[in-house]
Amino acid sequence: MIKVSIIGSGNVAGHLVQAFAQSDSVQLAQLFSRKKDLGFLLPDSIHLIHDLSDFEEADLYIIAVSDDAIAEISASLPFKNRLVAHTSGTMPLEIIHDNNRKAVFYPLQTFSKNKAVDFRGIPICIEAQFAADYQLLERTARAISEKPYAINSEQRKALHVAAVFANNFTNHLYQIADEICRDHQVPFEILKPLIAETAAKVMLLSPSEAQTGPAKRNDRKTIDAHEAFLSDYKKEIYHILTQSIQQHGEEL
Amino acid sequence: MIKVSIIGSGNVAGHLVQAFAQSDSVQLAQLFSRKKDLGFLLPDSIHLIHDLSDFEEADLYIIAVSDDAIAEISASLPFKNRLVAHTSGTMPLEIIHDNNRKAVFYPLQTFSKNKAVDFRGIPICIEAQFAADYQLLERTARAISEKPYAINSEQRKALHVAAVFANNFTNHLYQIADEICRDHQVPFEILKPLIAETAAKVMLLSPSEAQTGPAKRNDRKTIDAHEAFLSDYKKEIYHILTQSIQQHGEEL
Repeated sequence: MIKVSIIGSGNVAGHLVQAFAQSDSVQLAQLFSRKKDLGFLLPDSIHLIHDLSDFEEADLYIIAVSDDAIAEISASLPFKNRLVAHTSGTMPLEIIHDNNRKAVFYPLQTFSKNKAVDFRGIPICIEAQFAADYQLLERTARAISEKPYAINSEQRKALHVAAVFANNFTNHLYQIADEICRDHQVPFEILKPLIAETAAKVMLLSPSEAQTGPAKRNDRKTIDAHEAFLSDYKKEIYHILTQSIQQHGEEL
Repeated sequence: MIKVSIIGSGNVAGHLVQAFAQSDSVQLAQLFSRKKDLGFLLPDSIHLIHDLSDFEEADLYIIAVSDDAIAEISASLPFKNRLVAHTSGTMPLEIIHDNNRKAVFYPLQTFSKNKAVDFRGIPICIEAQFAADYQLLERTARAISEKPYAINSEQRKALHVAAVFANNFTNHLYQIADEICRDHQVPFEILKPLIAETAAKVMLLSPSEAQTGPAKRNDRKTIDAHEAFLSDYKKEIYHILTQSIQQHGEEL
């Protein structure tokens, strides 16, 4: 049984608690939170503490706090030579204070308070300062997910940038599409099957194989009509993404 | 039984033939194609013709050809006062020649040769010159889809632009993410659950509610690190999409 304690009270901490609570190979020991009020339900078996000095011994401490707070909280831990992981996509392994053995336990998914996710399918990117610790991290990851990946800090940084494109920016394109629909009294609903199919397609084809549309086939007439139809930043975004698609077409 | 004939040999024609062939309320009569070799299998019940003068009477003729060819082919039809629809997202109703009753039958989905789609969930945007024809179009649409929508030419134009954002541009962001992964020896595989969840989220939340990430929370440190990490058009796209997300945040 791997004994895990968690630090944090945000979405990632909440989802991790929920996932570990369902596992047979991990025992959740303590959750440290500065806030008295958690945004999620805590299983009975895990003890909520508000003072770092109340931490008991565990095999792994997972710091699931905002990037800016990791260094400070890892330096404040009142113990030494234990295994401490952060959950950030952007912070290097080294941000963990030298007092303890450093690790990263980064679940690559977008977590919302109001939407449950199935952890089994979520990739967990792990990294450890020492090989023996890597094995414990991998077993911990496998307790909740089928997809542990060994990813070093440099790769993780790239992955996080890629995730911003695949998630945050993609969602913003949905938002622009939604606005265009609303401006013309068209229900956004109509686009949902297209959005679902666009995502489903790249599960089977590479994005480069899946690319279609006026930019890809260099349909100047449609591109010009669309650019005339749009204004402001929407037009700018249309223009630069069209150029980028066409540049990619030429390179192939 | 609605008698439908189709003109075209591309992806849309192929998918329409397949969908109508499974319907009890539509009888596929003839398929006109200039090419002798179709890229799809034709059911036995539909007759392939290569000469427009071989067209027999039907309740509806669907022109599923490229935008540029619609005007010419609709002008070449050797009959008058029959119902003729095109399947384009961008062309107005009026592009159909005055000889016949004009209509639009636009299935809003991305069709690939190599990937089957379930037509039942595909929105079909319909428009007709005359009200009586609209009813026949709606019955025809319902024969293959649960989602017929009355969309006029102006709305359809907006919808098509929105679809370029939600589909073509979104796929291009996946491609950029794929490239960043490959440049850093990270499998694109890791991003797939995130891509699926990003699309799944906007089935339940509005894109504006679903927005997360460094731009949304104005995390300058991460944004600067990402922009320093990127170069060329990737950097430009990162910059403009970040700006647009932040501008949206302020407006709300």
